[in-house]
Amino acid sequence: MSQTIQTAVVGVTGYAGAELARLLVRHPRLRAKVPVFAGRVEAVDQERGGIPLGEIHPELTDSHGTGSLRLQSFSWELIDDLDVDVLFMATPHEWSRQAVPEARKRGIRVIDLSGAWRLEQAEHRAVYKFDDEGSTAALEMQSEAVYGMPELHREEIREAGLVANPGCYATSVILALKPLLAAELIDTGHGIVCDSKSGVSGAGKAATAKTHFMHAANNLSAYGVFTHRHTGELLEQLGVASEDLTFTPHLLPIPRGILSTIYVRFHEAQSNASIEACYRRFYHESPMVRLFGSTLPEIQFSVRTCYSDIGFHLSNDGRRAVIVSCLDNLLKGAAGQAVQNLNVMQGWGEAEGLE
Amino acid sequence: MSQTIQTAVVGVTGYAGAELARLLVRHPRLRAKVPVFAGRVEAVDQERGGIPLGEIHPELTDSHGTGSLRLQSFSWELIDDLDVDVLFMATPHEWSRQAVPEARKRGIRVIDLSGAWRLEQAEHRAVYKFDDEGSTAALEMQSEAVYGMPELHREEIREAGLVANPGCYATSVILALKPLLAAELIDTGHGIVCDSKSGVSGAGKAATAKTHFMHAANNLSAYGVFTHRHTGELLEQLGVASEDLTFTPHLLPIPRGILSTIYVRFHEAQSNASIEACYRRFYHESPMVRLFGSTLPEIQFSVRTCYSDIGFHLSNDGRRAVIVSCLDNLLKGAAGQAVQNLNVMQGWGEAEGLE
Amino acid sequence: MSQTIQTAVVGVTGYAGAELARLLVRHPRLRAKVPVFAGRVEAVDQERGGIPLGEIHPELTDSHGTGSLRLQSFSWELIDDLDVDVLFMATPHEWSRQAVPEARKRGIRVIDLSGAWRLEQAEHRAVYKFDDEGSTAALEMQSEAVYGMPELHREEIREAGLVANPGCYATSVILALKPLLAAELIDTGHGIVCDSKSGVSGAGKAATAKTHFMHAANNLSAYGVFTHRHTGELLEQLGVASEDLTFTPHLLPIPRGILSTIYVRFHEAQSNASIEACYRRFYHESPMVRLFGSTLPEIQFSVRTCYSDIGFHLSNDGRRAVIVSCLDNLLKGAAGQAVQNLNVMQGWGEAEGLE
Amino acid sequence: MSQTIQTAVVGVTGYAGAELARLLVRHPRLRAKVPVFAGRVEAVDQERGGIPLGEIHPELTDSHGTGSLRLQSFSWELIDDLDVDVLFMATPHEWSRQAVPEARKRGIRVIDLSGAWRLEQAEHRAVYKFDDEGSTAALEMQSEAVYGMPELHREEIREAGLVANPGCYATSVILALKPLLAAELIDTGHGIVCDSKSGVSGAGKAATAKTHFMHAANNLSAYGVFTHRHTGELLEQLGVASEDLTFTPHLLPIPRGILSTIYVRFHEAQSNASIEACYRRFYHESPMVRLFGSTLPEIQFSVRTCYSDIGFHLSNDGRRAVIVSCLDNLLKGAAGQAVQNLNVMQGWGEAEGLE
Repeated sequence: MSQTIQTAVVGVTGYAGAELARLLVRHPRLRAKVPVFAGRVEAVDQERGGIPLGEIHPELTDSHGTGSLRLQSFSWELIDDLDVDVLFMATPHEWSRQAVPEARKRGIRVIDLSGAWRLEQAEHRAVYKFDDEGSTAALEMQSEAVYGMPELHREEIREAGLVANPGCYATSVILALKPLLAAELIDTGHGIVCDSKSGVSGAGKAATAKTHFMHAANNLSAYGVFTHRHTGELLEQLGVASEDLTFTPHLLPIPRGILSTIYVRFHEAQSNASIEACYRRFYHESPMVRLFGSTLPEIQFSVRTCYSDIGFHLSNDGRRAVIVSCLDNLLKGAAGQAVQNLNVMQGWGEAEGLE
Repeated sequence: MSQTIQTAVVGVTGYAGAELARLLVRHPRLRAKVPVFAGRVEAVDQERGGIPLGEIHPELTDSHGTGSLRLQSFSWELIDDLDVDVLFMATPHEWSRQAVPEARKRGIRVIDLSGAWRLEQAEHRAVYKFDDEGSTAALEMQSEAVYGMPELHREEIREAGLVANPGCYATSVILALKPLLAAELIDTGHGIVCDSKSGVSGAGKAATAKTHFMHAANNLSAYGVFTHRHTGELLEQLGVASEDLTFTPHLLPIPRGILSTIYVRFHEAQSNASIEACYRRFYHESPMVRLFGSTLPEIQFSVRTCYSDIGFHLSNDGRRAVIVSCLDNLLKGAAGQAVQNLNVMQGWGEAEGLE
Repeated sequence: MSQTIQTAVVGVTGYAGAELARLLVRHPRLRAKVPVFAGRVEAVDQERGGIPLGEIHPELTDSHGTGSLRLQSFSWELIDDLDVDVLFMATPHEWSRQAVPEARKRGIRVIDLSGAWRLEQAEHRAVYKFDDEGSTAALEMQSEAVYGMPELHREEIREAGLVANPGCYATSVILALKPLLAAELIDTGHGIVCDSKSGVSGAGKAATAKTHFMHAANNLSAYGVFTHRHTGELLEQLGVASEDLTFTPHLLPIPRGILSTIYVRFHEAQSNASIEACYRRFYHESPMVRLFGSTLPEIQFSVRTCYSDIGFHLSNDGRRAVIVSCLDNLLKGAAGQAVQNLNVMQGWGEAEGLE
Repeated sequence: MSQTIQTAVVGVTGYAGAELARLLVRHPRLRAKVPVFAGRVEAVDQERGGIPLGEIHPELTDSHGTGSLRLQSFSWELIDDLDVDVLFMATPHEWSRQAVPEARKRGIRVIDLSGAWRLEQAEHRAVYKFDDEGSTAALEMQSEAVYGMPELHREEIREAGLVANPGCYATSVILALKPLLAAELIDTGHGIVCDSKSGVSGAGKAATAKTHFMHAANNLSAYGVFTHRHTGELLEQLGVASEDLTFTPHLLPIPRGILSTIYVRFHEAQSNASIEACYRRFYHESPMVRLFGSTLPEIQFSVRTCYSDIGFHLSNDGRRAVIVSCLDNLLKGAAGQAVQNLNVMQGWGEAEGLE
């Protein structure tokens, strides 16, 4: 059967890469072992045939079937030898800018978890300061990329050679707003506010002053106000003007999970039923979105799941809504969505291996 | 000297009452011991001359000079015997509705920490469902009450017989917005969004499903959307129409602290300098407000202090601002502000005993 | 095939019962839905055909296949109608004392998660103050019970009618000590110290002063010193005299997980190799024990797994050892071990449904 | 009056140094400002007359009177110019080994918070691998040092030129055991177990894999088993043989606080009264020790205080005790004890500035 494909993951030393390895080895369609690679050659001692993954992520021992995975140094020779069909890149965006074209040349389909290929507009890409920005090769590669949110781009993902897996914050905001914007219910000129809060895993595995327990615990801080990199994704995917959307991320004193509180005003008064119907219509074929109606989701409900949870409340006059959107930043916000994209690309059930 | 006054606190079993006792016994102007009372007669075993406060709040042992305080059953006879000048009430609002008029009859000045007397408009009071709502006596008492935020009502507080100490969320939002609204910089018609997050002590000392460690830890949840009781305070003190302000509180997995992220749009483009000047002008005589300018305060900075911290960022075009306002919900949000009010009422330095 | 058995769970409103439901619906041998029951009749509104489990445990939505489970009122009629083969009881011990004999009369095999039937000696049972203590019926039932730790009693469990699932603390201590005691390496006369620390879920779902976030967070406290109920299990299963073992539990500010630090002295000097060999010999057929050797396990490694992790360090002279034993109190310490017992009783792979 | 002395602190960038600055500026005997220094010259940008302390420790703003402190580069010229009487060193032990002799040459009294001068026996010092170990100068300096625990060495501290401030773990264990050992109640041959748990501030301000929020939160781990540096202090100060005391530190998922659970066996049966009397006798002139009797202290009670809290439980036969000892690792475990030593050295009230 053509179903048995060969996947591989580059960048397994980080949190998202580790979750990806965990999901892939348990995936019912991927019976073969999943080769996993460090993002940087020098990190790996090859002598033992690769470092057992459990030495880097002690929580990924045999309990998840990941006990036998061994982290290897990345090389294109190895990728060629393995005859990889789909390559996941959980690597820094600079790395992905270089490596993705290399993979595409080899005909390998890529699901890239970095911000390297998500943005269509040069103005939004500017925050990344890519070395190759504006080069013909980069622009061509960008034009091939599909924004990897199946709920919005299922058809293009099916055929895509390069899937740019969305940012975690962006996923939580876009899924909450897109149905209402698509139905033209929101008065965007009135301004949309997206107040997002994320657990510390979103800040990455590097030990910094910000991720030190003494700073993060018992604290809350806003950051990247008016400047966060995910803003471009919001504007492009939602089709909203820059001055009409304000996005503020915050660092929560918890390991994982994102809750976005989103404020909109409607052109006309809405009812709970009309808004719920709007969401249900948009997501009736989307198994990874759970609609809570006027019950509000909490961060705990989606943590360690691959779901995105959405609920809302309306003001008495039906003119304003507060929408609450929750997900696990490492799963629906990263690795879970990447596997969901794989499922779409392969024509498998969209939720396979994600429940 | 007339400076030595007699104070007493009712409702010391709760968090705010305990902080109040702690602040008062260390206050340089209050050399005498501060009598402390339970809010409910039945809670107290009188046989030992009152329960040592450390048995109810183990953290309030001798380390804070509170070691010798003993919780007594409340009675007006005792209050009369003590010749109390200023009575603090850290009691449920129903209790304050009954007890405040009683105290005022005796000529005692009252600083009430509940929501009983904060709201001028019947429509806003409706959420409290007061038994005596609309009675002549209650309306008269209400008209005597001064909203106890010295930064806004210093002069009235000086002479007040009844000070209604503000809500914790309300304090964090009002202090951030009032200077900009007073200067008529904000386009209120465009909508103001107040996204507030509070530690668990704000939910009170009662053991409930919501305050259970298993629910609160590693979680974040929004609640009281469009319906929270502090909304009326915001609207009245800020003079904004109900449809122009949206306030959403959230429960943070930390013991104490509030951070409010506030979103406004200006009539005209502003600069960092113009906004900072506006704040400095408004607060130049207010020692309990710390202005951070375009550095953003974090929740940790104000926790266990009596300060309110305010910072902001402007959008590139100067038309939008994100304001971050932090305070300790039990201090500047409750007990600290109550002592600040006492200082104003007595003509003492406003920050005495608060640093 | 005789493999398809009917199970049911009573007491699903608590944490252990919920985990049990989650494990059972995913168990590869139990294709049929698992009926789940409240422990107390009055808790359930039957009108909707039972309360969706997700309303009581919001984290147990469809993500775990538990979305369709509905909590029903318990009755023996229903149990009879369902033709239950194996009944799990995650109920208070008083309830289990009454209900287990009733189930056994019906020929149903029972796995009881309470402390009702774990203790052989009346002196150890005394802490529970059972109503029927000393009655002939109770003594007979007790003599039928098998202590449900497969690593120690695999053969008896296979045939057991009543399996008394061990306490969470007891599991963490017994698994760490039994191999060394069985090999007669430990000088028990010198005293064994078991210093255990547990997450808050161990204190149960009831909202109390102890489980209030404000008390549990940022704190650590010892409790039940010399009196904790699990002490009897330790003494009976380890065959150690009461004066030779001291066990102290502590409440950790985390949701789940137990770490026990255990101190022993050996008759003769040991080496890392000799101790590791002792453990490996004892557990070579036990898939749910992971041996870490002289690397020490941390609480995070076993949380959300059904494993028990054991590591140790020796003093320079090889005469003393510090053993560190970790597990998830709700899984290997409760629900996971219960399913492991089911696997043994049915002759299935011991780790089925637990990885 | 000779009371006004000049102090200075080196190493204020760390947690203990910052607490020290906070305590000293509020100390009633030290009206002059306290100069504070970085431990390493290169860390400081001198152009602004030193870095405002609040930029390094944002929690140390004006709320603590520390707002005007400015971190300066350390130099002996500055120390000479300031005419420093007592120098606090909150610096790494290597630094203290070099700098303390320099200070003593100048006739400056030193309170050193590092492990540089705490240990009398070369065998215990070996873990530090001092460069100058065994040199005559170092041995002479060591012989001058007094172990800075006023409860044990009050008289020597009074006259000391060099006070070696104890380790945080060591303080919590020694204070709990010394009275019982001095009274010869404990059967040391039976073994003493000290199971200690500390908050993350004990691991220092450096951002490492161990202090990363993702590792420390929701976790507990043992470390330094049989090898922790504080073991030597325990053995020397308690006069117990190495093979009779086992000490295991653990990393708690909280910012600050230590709880030590200590297990002893008595020569003869004891009563609650006899043990309590033993402690009261030993500590009747020690204001910084709070005796809880058979109530057990919790970590929260002493956090943010300069007290050490001690409670205990006896086994039924009175032959064994479990002692629980709590303190704040940065206060009684470091900066608070340093100020207590200053008080003793100056002949001031031992608790001045510590309540």
